Amino acid sequence: MDETPDGRGGPHVFVADPSMPVLGDDDRHHLARVLRLRDGDPITMGDGAGRWSPAVFRSDAEPEPTADVVEVPEAGSPVAVGFALIKGGRPELVVQKLTELGVDRILPLTAERSVVRWDAAKAGAQVERFRRVAREAAMQSRRVWLPEIEEVSAARHLAASDGLAVAEPGGDPLDGSIRTLLVGPEGGWTADELVGHRTVGLGRTVLRAETAAIAAGALLTALRDGRI
Amino acid sequence: MDETPDGRGGPHVFVADPSMPVLGDDDRHHLARVLRLRDGDPITMGDGAGRWSPAVFRSDAEPEPTADVVEVPEAGSPVAVGFALIKGGRPELVVQKLTELGVDRILPLTAERSVVRWDAAKAGAQVERFRRVAREAAMQSRRVWLPEIEEVSAARHLAASDGLAVAEPGGDPLDGSIRTLLVGPEGGWTADELVGHRTVGLGRTVLRAETAAIAAGALLTALRDGRI
Repeated sequence: MDETPDGRGGPHVFVADPSMPVLGDDDRHHLARVLRLRDGDPITMGDGAGRWSPAVFRSDAEPEPTADVVEVPEAGSPVAVGFALIKGGRPELVVQKLTELGVDRILPLTAERSVVRWDAAKAGAQVERFRRVAREAAMQSRRVWLPEIEEVSAARHLAASDGLAVAEPGGDPLDGSIRTLLVGPEGGWTADELVGHRTVGLGRTVLRAETAAIAAGALLTALRDGRI
Repeated sequence: MDETPDGRGGPHVFVADPSMPVLGDDDRHHLARVLRLRDGDPITMGDGAGRWSPAVFRSDAEPEPTADVVEVPEAGSPVAVGFALIKGGRPELVVQKLTELGVDRILPLTAERSVVRWDAAKAGAQVERFRRVAREAAMQSRRVWLPEIEEVSAARHLAASDGLAVAEPGGDPLDGSIRTLLVGPEGGWTADELVGHRTVGLGRTVLRAETAAIAAGALLTALRDGRI
């Protein structure tokens, strides 16, 4: 058995405890009605925190584990992408893609030029929505660790540190010492937001904010995994 | 003046000859009505083949160049991404993102497991649509060279070469010697399609085909530009 599900073991679902699985109603519906699984078809089940096991689907009962639960340690050097919420943006697309790419932590940010100003209730509802999107994307991409989706915070409140950089045209090349990359709104960061931070350039072209965030995720995870 | 438009010089439009610009009706409408430009507002104009110049917008006349045309040479080591067209896929999203990221050539592919089977007329119409999407994305991202969008071709007809690799789980890390990366359908490549090709891994997670193609573009352009 491979260390992590690779999709050949069937669809992946999240349950509280893979050794005593209880499927959520939505997940059961998805497996039975959308993916049309039949009794005995293989699936994998994970708790989103590193524990997973293969199982077979049962239409009239809970899934039946077919091997012991495997525990996969968390990434040794987790990577994070922060992205500014912008008016008319597609934050769900960003969360979906960052999750698929294997980013460990996702930070929805407000920026001085990002226009979006949410009250606490609206911000909370959005974060809940991002977590649902991340869960679906993690099922799709067979992640054993769900990404952490942080609460919305202001970029200017993030403390400068060695492992953190902000994306800015003309910045330095990205290297493996950077574990967190913050992507600003299309109007760019203000001088206040940049102060004290390393800057990293994400290309010669002018990137949409959503594209810059996805590119940041692709590059950080490739560096983390030694794939580049 | 910077070597290429960076967005601070206003919106970017394509014209046949930046030294004697003639705006298309759609572009004039976009600048005047959508972006609400006024007489004298700055824009940049490019021919999509390396020649561009700054200009000012005129509501009742053609744009007025404000400097000589600059010629930007083509990328010394162009990079290409091929992606399999799949049923229910979002090929326009892929073309948009690859164009924004600065990929030089885009190859829409059919793969043995890609299900999509278009006749010549439908394939031609789709390629025309991809070229429109690329043109819009190139305006947005201020590209002076439009990407080449190839006709739809079968992945198995692409000749193996040193600079070409196919994305495949468990493949090698990506390095700068690879200039063309082909991304398959979610069902993967067949053994026939893989034969003779180098393989490159795009991650530990199971990527949607569209996500794999976008990640390929982010990584290839970062390597090409020495940004990683």
